[in-house]
Amino acid sequence: MTDVKPTIESVPGFKVAGVHAGLKAEGALDFALIYSETPCVAAGVFTTNQVKAAPVLVDQERLQKNPTSIRAVAINTKCANACTGQQGIDNALQTARWVAEWLGCSEDEVLVMSTGVIGTQLPMDKIRRGVDLAVDALGDNNWEAAARAIMTTDTRPKMASFCSRHGYQIAGIAKGSGMIAPNMATMLSVVVTDASFNEVQAVSDVLKGSIGRSFNCIAVDGDTSTNDTVLLLANGHSAKFSNNHAFEEELDALTIDLAKEVVRDGEGATKFITVAVRGVGSRENAKQVANTIATSPLVKTAFYGGDANWGRIVAAAGRSGVTVDPLTMHLWITPGEQPKEDLLLFENGMPTDYSEAEATEIMNQPSISVLLDCGQGGLDAIVWTCDLSHDYVSINGHYRT
Amino acid sequence: MTDVKPTIESVPGFKVAGVHAGLKAEGALDFALIYSETPCVAAGVFTTNQVKAAPVLVDQERLQKNPTSIRAVAINTKCANACTGQQGIDNALQTARWVAEWLGCSEDEVLVMSTGVIGTQLPMDKIRRGVDLAVDALGDNNWEAAARAIMTTDTRPKMASFCSRHGYQIAGIAKGSGMIAPNMATMLSVVVTDASFNEVQAVSDVLKGSIGRSFNCIAVDGDTSTNDTVLLLANGHSAKFSNNHAFEEELDALTIDLAKEVVRDGEGATKFITVAVRGVGSRENAKQVANTIATSPLVKTAFYGGDANWGRIVAAAGRSGVTVDPLTMHLWITPGEQPKEDLLLFENGMPTDYSEAEATEIMNQPSISVLLDCGQGGLDAIVWTCDLSHDYVSINGHYRT
Repeated sequence: MTDVKPTIESVPGFKVAGVHAGLKAEGALDFALIYSETPCVAAGVFTTNQVKAAPVLVDQERLQKNPTSIRAVAINTKCANACTGQQGIDNALQTARWVAEWLGCSEDEVLVMSTGVIGTQLPMDKIRRGVDLAVDALGDNNWEAAARAIMTTDTRPKMASFCSRHGYQIAGIAKGSGMIAPNMATMLSVVVTDASFNEVQAVSDVLKGSIGRSFNCIAVDGDTSTNDTVLLLANGHSAKFSNNHAFEEELDALTIDLAKEVVRDGEGATKFITVAVRGVGSRENAKQVANTIATSPLVKTAFYGGDANWGRIVAAAGRSGVTVDPLTMHLWITPGEQPKEDLLLFENGMPTDYSEAEATEIMNQPSISVLLDCGQGGLDAIVWTCDLSHDYVSINGHYRT
Repeated sequence: MTDVKPTIESVPGFKVAGVHAGLKAEGALDFALIYSETPCVAAGVFTTNQVKAAPVLVDQERLQKNPTSIRAVAINTKCANACTGQQGIDNALQTARWVAEWLGCSEDEVLVMSTGVIGTQLPMDKIRRGVDLAVDALGDNNWEAAARAIMTTDTRPKMASFCSRHGYQIAGIAKGSGMIAPNMATMLSVVVTDASFNEVQAVSDVLKGSIGRSFNCIAVDGDTSTNDTVLLLANGHSAKFSNNHAFEEELDALTIDLAKEVVRDGEGATKFITVAVRGVGSRENAKQVANTIATSPLVKTAFYGGDANWGRIVAAAGRSGVTVDPLTMHLWITPGEQPKEDLLLFENGMPTDYSEAEATEIMNQPSISVLLDCGQGGLDAIVWTCDLSHDYVSINGHYRT
């Protein structure tokens, strides 16, 4: 597996910026621009929420019409530009137009992303200032500034990159820490590469496949936002056409790394939890059981309290909607991110005589894995999540104020 | 509508007790017994969780075989007797046997209920003491003691009763404040009446119907327990056969009162929230949208913070799985428990120019109603829920310790 780095140096042909447009207080970075010197083949995966933000609608249309010639992505924070009606659409289009004017490209070649509070209009004077400053600040090595500029309740920037042995790089930034549901993780992410592709469809296919194994496997609170967007831009600077399969594996490494970073920085999170489920006939069923466990407030608060309250995990499986039988279940926990048959807590419908001290020691680790085998055979599924803490409540009780 | 009282005096033919068996610390009541001098027609509705506690399995079988001759219900706290295997079943049966021996009835005429931690065996010495003490303490007017004896994280006993103008009484106790999901509220409740019924099936039918309009309309955290049970016992002491329809309406008044009490005393709850949804074609769809809103951690934390963050309500509707269009939505809030078209926050896909001060004043009331009309016509549905507070996390982070 390729070594994923938590930093990004330069990616041939891309320039980026992260600036302070005045959306956040006290000089914090709040507007990012990613620019490609040449047209990119691009694909996007968007929120499944039926209430879609203006930038989502704009990007979906542009990628439909124009998937082979994307030049820039502009991203603002503090305002989601969702539930903003025609004015919201107009503002998203205007943002793209300003970027296009500065960069000398067509406005159809510019995508936009927004994140923040729902239901307020973009402050266009600040957006204008953001565009002006960002165009001036574009450079090869500003990825960390861009990653910082898209943060909302995130406590740290999320970046990942690596150099493929096939001669190209892949790099991505992401933001997200609340409204994270398994059904398309609630977040923004832009991944860029100088890899070349034979056909446009391949870019879209590898992105969708990879998201199914990364951003769709994380849950913070089960809520799905109006703004979820992951974009992949490929400028083809590395001359040789990529092997799609190899690229997909590499992209997985990157997107899984970013997805786990989102969970690790989940709102109020104190623990990283890996939930693996198998033995319910199919991978889809396993995913459904794992999601039910990973979004149960009772399971998540027990992890927060360091309480090996396996009964809540078994009860969550029992209400998941998938057919399970407690008599054929086995439940193990282990420290770290690799689920395995370590400390067996539950089998044959009853608790084992496990050591409560040993269980508590595992539950107090910063990273814990749960493995639930329901005993009916079939592939496994993994969901990454975090605990539910007092801080989650504090952060979300007063988000707008 | 019949006046429901929050207390219970005596119900002809029933004797009850609540005693300290030693399950809880410091003399707190922890074991209840409800006894009927004559055989009752009885019905039960049980958890939909596939992981069912031993007492649920025992009661389901007994009510199947023997629905016309139930004499007693014994209820313990602190231990759910769930995930306890054959020994758990044996212990549940033994509890019933002791009760039957004391009361001089058949053990098949005794039902059992348990609530508390999953996965530990009943401490049978204490259960034995509970049975002995409770039989001694049986009396006409001990309903409050019984209601107290079934509490877990509840902060107050939940009782309701009324006298029908048709000449009988209906009275019930309930417990429950966490693991409360809309799909059969996670709780225990016993309702008794001296009404008479023509046929056994009627008792079961009215109970199921009433639960659909009461305990299945509340949500605290979306988790479903292994122990949910609501029993209805009718001893027929009032000679005249009841009109089933009239009885059902009266039972609704009682079960809705108890269900709301459960939400009002939800773990860590500081606010009572009524979520009404209409205009999504059918009542089932409306219920699904209302449930999604009522169990959204982001919606619930916003209520806790007194933040009129309507965007989260709209976003929850958008991910509910029911087809909705933000452009045809209307969203109102109002103080109190009666949803109505009061302060309009959202219409035509955009926020109105409502006064934020007015919205905040409503959001800071102890009881708040939300009305979401999705504009497609169709019946409404209501779900009662509470906010998600720091105390919910505290209570559940350390429940077993």
